[in-house]
Amino acid sequence: MASAEAWAYSKMNKYPKAILDLIDCYQALPGVGKKTAERYALYTFFHMKEESIIDFSNALLSLNKDIHICPNCGNICEDQVCSICSDPERDHSQILVVETVKDLYTLEKVNEFKGIYHVLNGAISFSKGISIDDLNIDSLVEKVKNGEVKEIILATNATLEGETTARYIKELLGEYDIKITRIAHGLPVGGDLSYADEMTVLKAFEGRRDY
Amino acid sequence: MASAEAWAYSKMNKYPKAILDLIDCYQALPGVGKKTAERYALYTFFHMKEESIIDFSNALLSLNKDIHICPNCGNICEDQVCSICSDPERDHSQILVVETVKDLYTLEKVNEFKGIYHVLNGAISFSKGISIDDLNIDSLVEKVKNGEVKEIILATNATLEGETTARYIKELLGEYDIKITRIAHGLPVGGDLSYADEMTVLKAFEGRRDY
Repeated sequence: MASAEAWAYSKMNKYPKAILDLIDCYQALPGVGKKTAERYALYTFFHMKEESIIDFSNALLSLNKDIHICPNCGNICEDQVCSICSDPERDHSQILVVETVKDLYTLEKVNEFKGIYHVLNGAISFSKGISIDDLNIDSLVEKVKNGEVKEIILATNATLEGETTARYIKELLGEYDIKITRIAHGLPVGGDLSYADEMTVLKAFEGRRDY
Repeated sequence: MASAEAWAYSKMNKYPKAILDLIDCYQALPGVGKKTAERYALYTFFHMKEESIIDFSNALLSLNKDIHICPNCGNICEDQVCSICSDPERDHSQILVVETVKDLYTLEKVNEFKGIYHVLNGAISFSKGISIDDLNIDSLVEKVKNGEVKEIILATNATLEGETTARYIKELLGEYDIKITRIAHGLPVGGDLSYADEMTVLKAFEGRRDY
């Protein structure tokens, strides 16, 4: 029966190879299943212009060629060192520690922080098997040891993994004479108290300030 | 103020150009917004292997090079004519009319139909401004005129657009001596009557058969 099924499958008309290949590629993206990948691939063929497909192809190759990771902070960049680390107007004594590059750019959009960043590239997670050795922490300790740093701002997420990582870094750097702070967690601006989850309400309550 | 904002924006640190380009490309896909596109682009850089990115890039270029539309039925193919139209074992007197190539492959998966297809490439839609002239219908009429066809099976969707299109084709081909059928609409297999929408229940009732 199994071989009869395999035979039937082999006789079945399938998409042309180029489409099947593209479906596989799209399916490698996070949260994209077979059906969505199929939809993306057919859309690419039927609705994108030939030049747009060439641009798309070049943008992908450009990742391999032009983008690398800043050896100083873990950000992505096109030059030797990223544009933030190489900016002389930024305060190199203040380091904001984030889990991902995406977090870095989310903070940059606010246009408030004028120090530099340090991207951990993840957070300690027992369930995902990510230990401290998998994170970009050594170079952070090195910078602190060299005495360049006055303040470390921990901006890891308010999740079990993010909190564990923040706590670990605090203990790791506890012996040095630097200020270690954590970004505030609480109710989002414009949020409704009655819709907030319990942990957020708890954090908002614990973090209350004089008014 | 506007120019001050523009200045602040120009000073803001943004992703490297290759990442921004790739975000734009992903954002062109259906249902993909800015945040998802950003997630896809960063995932591509951080989690896909260099070779996978090259494969992805080649798969895209291959669409332009290797894939074209079957002049006979509107299916996508790598050869002159698609593998279904060129299959001598298939019954060329029975034509199943579908809206999209995706519908065609959905039907092929069932491995039941042994005739050939005709892909309309859409359906008549007043709201989207798609008229009969935008659809691949002329070559279907041509085939019927040539007297090769015995049965046309209309498998357009059970939507306003699909029904309008089916009705139009029925009238267009009414004068020829062929059988025109419509695929059955009703309750899905394994579906629960109480969860079905009213239109589906109505179709299931109208389409009842002797038992």
